[in-house]
Amino acid sequence: MTRQELIQQIKKKKSFLSVGLDTDINKIPKHLLKSDDPIFEFNKQIIDATADFCVSYKVNTAFYESRGVKGWQSLIKTFNYLPKDTFSIADAKRGDIGNTSAMYADAFFNPESSEMNFDSVTVAPYMGKDSVSPFLKYANKWVILLALTSNDGANDFQFFGNDDGYLFEKVIRKSQEWASEEQMMYVVGATRGEAFLDIRKLAPKHFLLVPGVGAQGGSLQDVCKYGMNEDCGLIVNSSRAIIYASSEKNFAEVARNEAKKIQQEMEKELLAINF
Amino acid sequence: MTRQELIQQIKKKKSFLSVGLDTDINKIPKHLLKSDDPIFEFNKQIIDATADFCVSYKVNTAFYESRGVKGWQSLIKTFNYLPKDTFSIADAKRGDIGNTSAMYADAFFNPESSEMNFDSVTVAPYMGKDSVSPFLKYANKWVILLALTSNDGANDFQFFGNDDGYLFEKVIRKSQEWASEEQMMYVVGATRGEAFLDIRKLAPKHFLLVPGVGAQGGSLQDVCKYGMNEDCGLIVNSSRAIIYASSEKNFAEVARNEAKKIQQEMEKELLAINF
Repeated sequence: MTRQELIQQIKKKKSFLSVGLDTDINKIPKHLLKSDDPIFEFNKQIIDATADFCVSYKVNTAFYESRGVKGWQSLIKTFNYLPKDTFSIADAKRGDIGNTSAMYADAFFNPESSEMNFDSVTVAPYMGKDSVSPFLKYANKWVILLALTSNDGANDFQFFGNDDGYLFEKVIRKSQEWASEEQMMYVVGATRGEAFLDIRKLAPKHFLLVPGVGAQGGSLQDVCKYGMNEDCGLIVNSSRAIIYASSEKNFAEVARNEAKKIQQEMEKELLAINF
Repeated sequence: MTRQELIQQIKKKKSFLSVGLDTDINKIPKHLLKSDDPIFEFNKQIIDATADFCVSYKVNTAFYESRGVKGWQSLIKTFNYLPKDTFSIADAKRGDIGNTSAMYADAFFNPESSEMNFDSVTVAPYMGKDSVSPFLKYANKWVILLALTSNDGANDFQFFGNDDGYLFEKVIRKSQEWASEEQMMYVVGATRGEAFLDIRKLAPKHFLLVPGVGAQGGSLQDVCKYGMNEDCGLIVNSSRAIIYASSEKNFAEVARNEAKKIQQEMEKELLAINF
């Protein structure tokens, strides 16, 4: 999906919500455990229920890998069920030396190799340019690079710095030599509030993928106040607050309502910038 | 595997070699393509041929993931074929927020969940403590944290620094608050020669996993000169230089000879420190 197509979807749906399919067998409604593939069955119902209100789905690969081959099968089925007009994110946080990152790119971007063809993958920056570049060789595919994450551990290294700034700022500056805002986004945690101001100075045009609204405590209003740009420039992800809003038989309906609530808040934010 | 058991294996085999199973369907001998699972068949023959000369096998997950479900099946079969007295490394370079890293730990350390039970996993440090800690909850399992990698991109961020040192030094210092040398190792590329001197000042007792000997150009002699400690303290990995030494029918025999050559060099290095 191109940047322009993503912007069009945001305009059409009046939403910049990503629903995170962090699907844990121990948290899904018990009645689903009888189905052949409970993880996929859960995802399918969540996708059907929420597709009107989101522009993106983010699949966290850890939740699937943890279940071995059957988890990988659920992941592939889930990818193939995603509506084609939504922006698909493989939240895999990969990164390795060049020839190995090329294999990871095959895993998520090359359906002939892996049966999956995501629009984007999250990548860890620690190993530098050649760990990121292989993902950029695919036209209209995206790298979403970890910059400032939403967790406590972000403080251990991401704020390591010198007179030129912090590590996460160096990551944002340096990586702009590798790709433009047409192929690169940054992960910035919703728990970071005013840090968005600094980040927007460094990356005014880029889309930011923002996890941490909801269960992790970030505020959508703050994220919009400090992080929005003229193209919206945000994809805000919510996982647990939507998909586990209910563990009863009506879980999908409740998830739909939660997604709709967030979409309505987003619509207000978009109106406020005349988007 | 405990640190003491690893040291015993090194003494017994007079080797600190890890064979890297970076198995690429496009590089294995053509006659294997007829078998049901060419990747596993190749690995099986390489393992049988090299087990006398190495103390460890490192499986790079990217090469398996890139092939989707069938790749994941080959990975599980390969894990389960590894000799139980070798130190097994899932070279996955994972790392995510706490609850997600716990899922990655299940993927590699919990056989009930994933059918795999590796001794260790490589982890990227960018997201800090809570991205690493879930792996440390497993007794006698190891985190091998990326510190100074062997690729060109290492220069982009790992040497970012201030008066207190570089980022990779900060990673080594900080992470010692999370685990001791009984559960933590560091990745240090063989291409880094004298940097081992600095690293040994920060981590005198830790084992270092050293990729980059062979195809990537690192020198075993330099690694030993600057990196060895009184417990050996090194696991030196070679992948392509061993497993792709021949693409003919006798590939396993040629791989065995290459592994033996490296083991003999290692034996000399161990003798030199009276190990």
